[in-house]
Amino acid sequence: MAIGVGLLGLGTVGAGVATILTNPEGRHPLVAELALRRVAVRDPKRSRPADLPATLIVTDPKAVVDDPAVEIVVEVMGGLEPARSLILRAIAAGKPVVTANKAVIARHGEEIAAAAAAHGVYVLIEAAVGGGIPIIEPLKQSLGGNRIQRVSGIINGTTNYILSRMADEGAAYAEVLADAQRLGYAEADPAADVQGDDAADKIAILAGLAYGGPVPRSGIATEGIDRLEPRDVAYAAQLGFVVKLLAVAEHMGRVEDGSELLDVRVHPTLLPKGHPLAGVHGVNNAILVEGDPVGQVMFFGPGAGAGPTASAVVADILNIAGIRQVGGPTAGLDPLLAATSWRRCVLVDSTRTRHRNYVRLRTRDEAGVIGKIGTCFGDAGVSIQSIVQFAGHEGAAEIVTITHEVLESRFREALAAIQALREVQSVAACLRTL
Amino acid sequence: MAIGVGLLGLGTVGAGVATILTNPEGRHPLVAELALRRVAVRDPKRSRPADLPATLIVTDPKAVVDDPAVEIVVEVMGGLEPARSLILRAIAAGKPVVTANKAVIARHGEEIAAAAAAHGVYVLIEAAVGGGIPIIEPLKQSLGGNRIQRVSGIINGTTNYILSRMADEGAAYAEVLADAQRLGYAEADPAADVQGDDAADKIAILAGLAYGGPVPRSGIATEGIDRLEPRDVAYAAQLGFVVKLLAVAEHMGRVEDGSELLDVRVHPTLLPKGHPLAGVHGVNNAILVEGDPVGQVMFFGPGAGAGPTASAVVADILNIAGIRQVGGPTAGLDPLLAATSWRRCVLVDSTRTRHRNYVRLRTRDEAGVIGKIGTCFGDAGVSIQSIVQFAGHEGAAEIVTITHEVLESRFREALAAIQALREVQSVAACLRTL
Repeated sequence: MAIGVGLLGLGTVGAGVATILTNPEGRHPLVAELALRRVAVRDPKRSRPADLPATLIVTDPKAVVDDPAVEIVVEVMGGLEPARSLILRAIAAGKPVVTANKAVIARHGEEIAAAAAAHGVYVLIEAAVGGGIPIIEPLKQSLGGNRIQRVSGIINGTTNYILSRMADEGAAYAEVLADAQRLGYAEADPAADVQGDDAADKIAILAGLAYGGPVPRSGIATEGIDRLEPRDVAYAAQLGFVVKLLAVAEHMGRVEDGSELLDVRVHPTLLPKGHPLAGVHGVNNAILVEGDPVGQVMFFGPGAGAGPTASAVVADILNIAGIRQVGGPTAGLDPLLAATSWRRCVLVDSTRTRHRNYVRLRTRDEAGVIGKIGTCFGDAGVSIQSIVQFAGHEGAAEIVTITHEVLESRFREALAAIQALREVQSVAACLRTL
Repeated sequence: MAIGVGLLGLGTVGAGVATILTNPEGRHPLVAELALRRVAVRDPKRSRPADLPATLIVTDPKAVVDDPAVEIVVEVMGGLEPARSLILRAIAAGKPVVTANKAVIARHGEEIAAAAAAHGVYVLIEAAVGGGIPIIEPLKQSLGGNRIQRVSGIINGTTNYILSRMADEGAAYAEVLADAQRLGYAEADPAADVQGDDAADKIAILAGLAYGGPVPRSGIATEGIDRLEPRDVAYAAQLGFVVKLLAVAEHMGRVEDGSELLDVRVHPTLLPKGHPLAGVHGVNNAILVEGDPVGQVMFFGPGAGAGPTASAVVADILNIAGIRQVGGPTAGLDPLLAATSWRRCVLVDSTRTRHRNYVRLRTRDEAGVIGKIGTCFGDAGVSIQSIVQFAGHEGAAEIVTITHEVLESRFREALAAIQALREVQSVAACLRTL
């Protein structure tokens, strides 16, 4: 018996989903049991996939949600509103929802999850993170036996494309960005990507699933790549590192009230060239999950694009269709698939975290500078792995230091002392290092 | 309400599972609802995990299966019998089964699947392939919207460890094998690993899931690494390739009766250094899935070991426990989780497949040899990418040819003509190339 699907949005992802549903041949047989009942578009005059009858098209998205023939609502319109309201409307009507909308989930995930739990419906979000990469389902359904220590990843394709080209060509950020915009890899307004907010949305979602409770999105320390200079990419390469925009969620312990203490952050990061994430190039994404007892597992693939994202959306639709065959209308929810939260998560004070750091200083080109800088680090208890002077220009020197893992508060203390040195002109760059 | 689990076997994997179940703290809350009811061991005098009460231990595995308090049977004893019979016994009693036993599934999968379908129970096998890497669940539950073109992977950790060391150190196969045995990375009888049979078992399982029907295990062309010479690893490296034991299942089309035509094989393979699988070192595994529209997604992680394998076993137990909350005792099966087969698969005649090839010839060190070899390839319609002479010894030369993608029958024809050349002493090595 066919299961009715309603589609909110017919952009590239929506069209990709429609193409799969209307061409089930060669796919899992459950695809053939999905029937596209109604599709909301903004402009009905724009072209649509050839196989889609005009009679399915409406312009009012509420008509999709409210259509009694629509049993599963698929939100691929993007943006916060009306996406949020439509998702809540579908839930209130007892209809399961599939969404690719990471912004809505990262910002209104708690409200949506509460509504879904109250009405006993699934809200599935595989396409919200990592494009076509199965990562949400594995986190929910394949790693539950583990104590998750860390989830880290390259989860923004635009910035990884820009960083890959900066590394390969020594090109400047602004130049590569303009090129990426021309090629369609970056949006006209690239702020959400290059400033790290998109990655922060996604790591909030991954952390919430990995640690079993919502993560306060607004508390995620976020730094983008928009101020990254090509010389830091080049120096890093000479020192054996690759610069990537990394999103990280790390388990730091537990606070007295039983909440999980997490360090969740997004920033450009130096990865040793042998690190599993260092080889992820271009618009690809990869997510590394570290847990006990599984060790390190990594999920790699295309992080965006109509086809990959549609694959993830259809996976969620199939899961809802599959589980419908288990119980009747009064069936309960599978707690793994529903991803009911079971813990409270709080974010750590960043001064209490420990990291390795890359620091580039502009100094006068004088003897003894390295010694004074070394002393400042030493006085603050910051242990150094390497300190290298690179060729400066106009009488200035550039000194790059890579520290061992140090407490952030001590590192900041050392930096303050270094900045006060007469010979130091500026702290030109400061990047986290794995 | 607790769900009773029975364990068949308490080796490293079984002990790993017991440790997770008896220490639920910090894991998914569903773990706390699993209760270990009975454990079958071969020798009750051997040590067991500290948290396991002696009262749970029995020596007759049938007593575990038959215990009314055992609701999920976990088979981690390995070997074909009595594992197969015990799995069937559990199914007949209506109890879902979790197994890490790739040999049983690859050889008796059809019989077991038929019994499971008849009795309406799940048989889950995440741990059978790729150790801790979630690959079975994603294939079943996250990629169903795709037409799968190819599944390829490094799915035997022992051989990947040996190959990694051969490449890094230029060491001989036998020498590294002996070392691997000493370190516990290879078994005393390494045949199943080094001859490729273990990888063939696993690719049979992956192909069966990816293409929706059982793959005839006995028809899988299997070549191991036991005759691989270090010089071929070295020559490959000089030409820009890494040698890996690759298991491949490729969709070749459809035959008249509607069956899917597959090319399934295991052999040492030259991968270009930039290939996603080329960077998989040591005992790690990785599986690359290529489908339309998802593109390439890769799953990477520890391919063996007590902890990773136990993580996968517990994932399966959790999935069964989770889905139990959906329906009552009369519930149906989720077709995705149950992985009901829906197609027939047949294997292609290997002479009709197309591949790139690496060929090393030992020849007399004479002028004109390369020309004659090139002519033999050309006459058979085999196009060549490169032909390089390496330093030989004792008056002999070594000539390595890498072909473009060619029909296997034409390649064999060319090889026969080359072997008949007066100047050619032997075809010393012949390896597939991506």
